[in-house]
Amino acid sequence: MKREHIEEMKRRGRNIVLSIAYDGTGYHGFQRQNNAVAVQNVLEEKLSQLFGETVELAAAGRTDTGVHALEQVVNFFTSGKIPTDKIPYAANSLLPKDIIVTNAWEADMNFSARHSAKAKTYLYKIQCGKFPNPFLRNYTWYVRENLNLEIIEEALELLEGVHDFSSFRAAGGAPMSPVREIYETSLKVKDDILEISFYGNGFLYHMVRNMIGTLVTLGSGRMNLTKFKEIFDAKDRTLASPTAPPGGLYLLKVEY
Amino acid sequence: MKREHIEEMKRRGRNIVLSIAYDGTGYHGFQRQNNAVAVQNVLEEKLSQLFGETVELAAAGRTDTGVHALEQVVNFFTSGKIPTDKIPYAANSLLPKDIIVTNAWEADMNFSARHSAKAKTYLYKIQCGKFPNPFLRNYTWYVRENLNLEIIEEALELLEGVHDFSSFRAAGGAPMSPVREIYETSLKVKDDILEISFYGNGFLYHMVRNMIGTLVTLGSGRMNLTKFKEIFDAKDRTLASPTAPPGGLYLLKVEY
Repeated sequence: MKREHIEEMKRRGRNIVLSIAYDGTGYHGFQRQNNAVAVQNVLEEKLSQLFGETVELAAAGRTDTGVHALEQVVNFFTSGKIPTDKIPYAANSLLPKDIIVTNAWEADMNFSARHSAKAKTYLYKIQCGKFPNPFLRNYTWYVRENLNLEIIEEALELLEGVHDFSSFRAAGGAPMSPVREIYETSLKVKDDILEISFYGNGFLYHMVRNMIGTLVTLGSGRMNLTKFKEIFDAKDRTLASPTAPPGGLYLLKVEY
Repeated sequence: MKREHIEEMKRRGRNIVLSIAYDGTGYHGFQRQNNAVAVQNVLEEKLSQLFGETVELAAAGRTDTGVHALEQVVNFFTSGKIPTDKIPYAANSLLPKDIIVTNAWEADMNFSARHSAKAKTYLYKIQCGKFPNPFLRNYTWYVRENLNLEIIEEALELLEGVHDFSSFRAAGGAPMSPVREIYETSLKVKDDILEISFYGNGFLYHMVRNMIGTLVTLGSGRMNLTKFKEIFDAKDRTLASPTAPPGGLYLLKVEY
């Protein structure tokens, strides 16, 4: 949004922030599209209907087609009078069942869900085991090979800290600095589901899915840790493994 | 299948039994349909392709549109030579990702997945909590009211044993005996998910979903236990609550 447009919007008087959970399976990502239905299209349409004026959202993170969110954060300016605590219920009564508003609060006029975000956590779920679970086909990446969790944990430690993540950025991405900080990673096993999370100050386009793709190659034994380190150090996307599928990825949390 | 047809089929020489898990969301139930896609249509088509002859399945239980199975059991006769332990992988490579063969074994020629079944377990999942979970919209029934679990457990005890289940059978169902035995029920809570299971020798059409509908009315406080007992004793379907939605129901296990 242009600065003058934002200033005009702010004169509406209220800055509403929402937490949103969505199943990204049926959407062309989060960001508004002209010729396809994205989560933002649906949210803006229903919120505009609810508030009786055109609602324009800013969001903490863009998610790709098929990627999910457990807690996406958005904000918008409104002159509408709906009490803040009633907004989730009112919005959910209009929204489809795969997009749910789980919280609403009012922020000061300078808060931006996008620009005020300090850190984000992404979660990636991998289903292991003898057979793929039909209920998780859009919500995990099914990997039949046995994964060596210790070696994946060692690689996760290498990824923590301030690094140039060029090896894991999308080919042909926007020309922005490839340096990011990952504060913390975690690996948990729940039954046959492997959950890997990344908590950091920002992520390059496809960065999480590219790290996961390469971690799975490593864990399956098709690559060793020395090779993983070489790829990471080379700052060259062409060396890493293919991008992991979108269905396993979740925007888990945004910190302000 | 007619007797002569079965005898002809048996001359194929092998009686293969499969365990199947499926997400019923996209299907018009399990049983083969002429003008809609049921799970059986897809299974028979892919197994026929795999075995190079027309495969006709018998199944332990029929499930309705939107109802799922964690372990449905089917059998079919074949003259095909595929080793039994290879069948799941070969079948899964042809099947869509919402239907998965999880086991295969060879049975004697008199075994019927349908007629040899001695007992079945159905599971019903209810999601409680402040907001519906967008990822569970097709896999649970979302109930916003607080449910009194102790009173639901008392009612489950009433349902155990040999009873006339007329009050919970589908209106206009087939004219078969309404007497069934429920060996055991269970109620478990996992985070905000309530799991209620019924282990019994047989179930009338819609019986589990009708019991669940009435148990939720009871648990929400809109009905007391005396009323629940009256409804059960009345043997009159018109008194019980509406049928619970299909997405929360799973065929969990079949016993032979």
